[in-house]
Amino acid sequence: MADQLIIFDTTLRDGEQSPGASMTRDEKLRIARLLERLRVDVIEAGFAASSNGDFECVQAIAGIVKDSTVCSLARANDRDISRAAEALKGAARSRIHTFIATSPLHMEKKLRMSPDEVFEQARLAVRFARNLTDDVEFSAEDGSRSELDFLARVCEAAIKEGATTVNIPDTVGYAIPELYGLFLKTLREKVPNSDKAIWSVHCHNDLGMAVANSLAGAKIGGARQIECTINGLGERAGNCSLEEVVMAVKTRRDYFGFDVGIDASHIVPASRMVSQVTGFVVQPNKAVVGANAFAHASGIHQDGVLKARDTYEIMRAEDVGWPTNKIVLGKLSGRNAFKQRLQELGVMLESESEVMAAFARFKDLADRKSEIFDEDILALVGDESVTAEKEQYGFVSLAQHSETGERPQAEVVFTINGKEFKGQAEGNGPVDASLKAIEAHVNSGAELLLYSVNAITSGSTESQGEVTVRLQSAGRVVNGVGADPDIVVASAKAYLSALNKLHNKAERVAAQG
Amino acid sequence: MADQLIIFDTTLRDGEQSPGASMTRDEKLRIARLLERLRVDVIEAGFAASSNGDFECVQAIAGIVKDSTVCSLARANDRDISRAAEALKGAARSRIHTFIATSPLHMEKKLRMSPDEVFEQARLAVRFARNLTDDVEFSAEDGSRSELDFLARVCEAAIKEGATTVNIPDTVGYAIPELYGLFLKTLREKVPNSDKAIWSVHCHNDLGMAVANSLAGAKIGGARQIECTINGLGERAGNCSLEEVVMAVKTRRDYFGFDVGIDASHIVPASRMVSQVTGFVVQPNKAVVGANAFAHASGIHQDGVLKARDTYEIMRAEDVGWPTNKIVLGKLSGRNAFKQRLQELGVMLESESEVMAAFARFKDLADRKSEIFDEDILALVGDESVTAEKEQYGFVSLAQHSETGERPQAEVVFTINGKEFKGQAEGNGPVDASLKAIEAHVNSGAELLLYSVNAITSGSTESQGEVTVRLQSAGRVVNGVGADPDIVVASAKAYLSALNKLHNKAERVAAQG
Repeated sequence: MADQLIIFDTTLRDGEQSPGASMTRDEKLRIARLLERLRVDVIEAGFAASSNGDFECVQAIAGIVKDSTVCSLARANDRDISRAAEALKGAARSRIHTFIATSPLHMEKKLRMSPDEVFEQARLAVRFARNLTDDVEFSAEDGSRSELDFLARVCEAAIKEGATTVNIPDTVGYAIPELYGLFLKTLREKVPNSDKAIWSVHCHNDLGMAVANSLAGAKIGGARQIECTINGLGERAGNCSLEEVVMAVKTRRDYFGFDVGIDASHIVPASRMVSQVTGFVVQPNKAVVGANAFAHASGIHQDGVLKARDTYEIMRAEDVGWPTNKIVLGKLSGRNAFKQRLQELGVMLESESEVMAAFARFKDLADRKSEIFDEDILALVGDESVTAEKEQYGFVSLAQHSETGERPQAEVVFTINGKEFKGQAEGNGPVDASLKAIEAHVNSGAELLLYSVNAITSGSTESQGEVTVRLQSAGRVVNGVGADPDIVVASAKAYLSALNKLHNKAERVAAQG
Repeated sequence: MADQLIIFDTTLRDGEQSPGASMTRDEKLRIARLLERLRVDVIEAGFAASSNGDFECVQAIAGIVKDSTVCSLARANDRDISRAAEALKGAARSRIHTFIATSPLHMEKKLRMSPDEVFEQARLAVRFARNLTDDVEFSAEDGSRSELDFLARVCEAAIKEGATTVNIPDTVGYAIPELYGLFLKTLREKVPNSDKAIWSVHCHNDLGMAVANSLAGAKIGGARQIECTINGLGERAGNCSLEEVVMAVKTRRDYFGFDVGIDASHIVPASRMVSQVTGFVVQPNKAVVGANAFAHASGIHQDGVLKARDTYEIMRAEDVGWPTNKIVLGKLSGRNAFKQRLQELGVMLESESEVMAAFARFKDLADRKSEIFDEDILALVGDESVTAEKEQYGFVSLAQHSETGERPQAEVVFTINGKEFKGQAEGNGPVDASLKAIEAHVNSGAELLLYSVNAITSGSTESQGEVTVRLQSAGRVVNGVGADPDIVVASAKAYLSALNKLHNKAERVAAQG
């Protein structure tokens, strides 16, 4: 029988740490549900001790996920570990993931601790965690740049104290496949009790080799858990992409010989949801989930593409969940058809009132747009205002005008805590004027870091525009998303959604891994 | 002395083949100049025999590039090779790159030829090419899936006939680093005259391992040329990224021990130019050139980021040409300052009249936008209407209005072959209305495949919007780009630019490799 490869998804923890990728509780719940449907083995739901918000997210995810293990990160200290255990109480299966850096550079510059102190703290942390749960993962941060004998000593101690998984991250994305694979192999040989734990890899993509490094860690190094994120989301160049590493293992099973439990048909919906929630676009030439990754899914009907498909494509687009782009619903679709389609798309809304709100928006959209695609539906439910989250700012209406030679103008009506305000402003363009019209009352002083628009569906100029606005204020960075057939309206909605997030988000401790 | 690693860039050939990435002659010339400044060893400028347009592009690039070898692709037949030689006549240094598939699947399904016929055709093609030039590259398409003994026989014959470079592509992105490295090593051992040629790798990224495969091909397999593209542009999941593979070799010189001639400080400008010209966005978590790849370049000034920089960053943002995002020019800047900045950015315009046109646009922009960044300047010169290319469609002016509860309206004035037309239309949003207003006269019937907007600079709502519109008509796919502080105007400009490209582009033969 082939060895099982454990897929540990950290989109909600390491992925979310990417500047600008922060998510609300509802967004995290939606993604967690989709990860469960993907049959991810372990979902790292957050870093419970880092903030009250993160604690609540971990707790909420632990409460709803049944088929995956839910995990919380914790630094190697009793307080962090206790918080993690507390947040995970309601989980069907839970894991505490504690970490400490073991590389000379990180111990000296970041921790300001001696190797012996690090050794002792790692040991005590695992012991403490193991008293609270049976499933404990220990990570040696910056493991790939750690001194081999010291690292082996720390790993041996962690296993002796009860760590069931030992993770050797390539925290800074410095590794090279053959070296990293060999490093892990040698390390495991140096650890006398290495067979008592599952070994894990966690690779970053700074030199573009996170997927190859992870696979070498498994095939050459003997790791049986791979940590990864949807779309490779993560700090700097991101983490190992779940979709790439999973499809490599499936496509090259002849070589790897691993079984992997992932249901690949949910990969593309998961990619879209993460991209939509974070506002991080997926480039067209991204493997597996990019718009061009499969010729026939790119909307291009060139002669010979289908004929050549077998000769050039090593995976099938439908196997990873590329939609057929067919019209799924229209003006006459009822609430049950809508609800059923939501379920098929892996979206479960919290309450009946949320379904009602989403359906009302659907009918409104169907009045203006004759063909409703899956992407439109996902955008509808992605729209902040559908979710139950208490909102400070709400969109009411907008009027704008621009004309060559004149200064563009906009008037936006919106609510602050339920009370209506009307803002007017001029700007460089209608979007600029609309955002200024909102700022005229709000005075958030937030800095606009990013503004982008993507059409949600192709094939028609009637497509909805999905706008992402990234704001920074007082050191916090948030993304707001808004969708509307009118791009200026979508921009105002996205701006208000970002303001809501700025208002809701608390600061928190950042972790690395 | 360390071995020299030859960097062969195929952005203008394999990159451009990506559906939607087609470029005009002027765009190709601009990119070729920047590739020369990057000190790329070989620039694959196109596939001369595929169309008259491609022939002219190769010819034009051969005429201006002095420091890099200019290369044209050619199928393994006399006509293709003659056309390549003819297009390359004016080059300071030139290479003919001829290819034929050697895998059982491709020989049977695509070529419908027997292995012996393929062997013979490869031999004759290299012989013919070698009579026309001293620098001949032979590629065995789908090499990584070819039968080893047959492939060795073909390579030996190609070298005997005078091929100076032998390339073993992983055409479908199926390879795994350790296997591909070993495959190349074994292959070279089987080829008696293997030391008479430089071996090359050309990897696709379908499983996310193009960079690792290329490096394994060099380090384990003994290749000394890597074929790659800026931003990893290319069909499906794209090619090996130049920026990633080069920075991996530089950052891990301790292991690879290769010298590479690339001037990395031009990497980010090259990435931006290619992204702008093709309309292919670079995702924020893209290694080296993504907006988040370096913490300090992401525009986020979190406490501790700079302190932690050394501990988490293995490259320096400034070494790969990340701009300091400082204001470079303003309203009072003169023509000389503008010209100098263009030169510093690696942009060389064709003629003085183009510089004048770009400067006029710069002054116009400076009137409306107080801070002008490098990105704004690059957008200015990227604007189609600045370039000398003869245009059928031109933008004149636009007026639009949208208001909640009413149908958005737009009126666009534009020229067709110099004559003014005014179109009016309603739409789902002001952008939709504007594009319909143009279509009302043009009736191109083109299908909109993609619409996206990115703000060119961050830090202010006054940023310009850069709109990309991808149109498909009669099997051809083109991208149009337009920039303006008014997003609706930018959209109309992008649409007209796409119409111009549809009008200019001839169909051509597609190559794989």
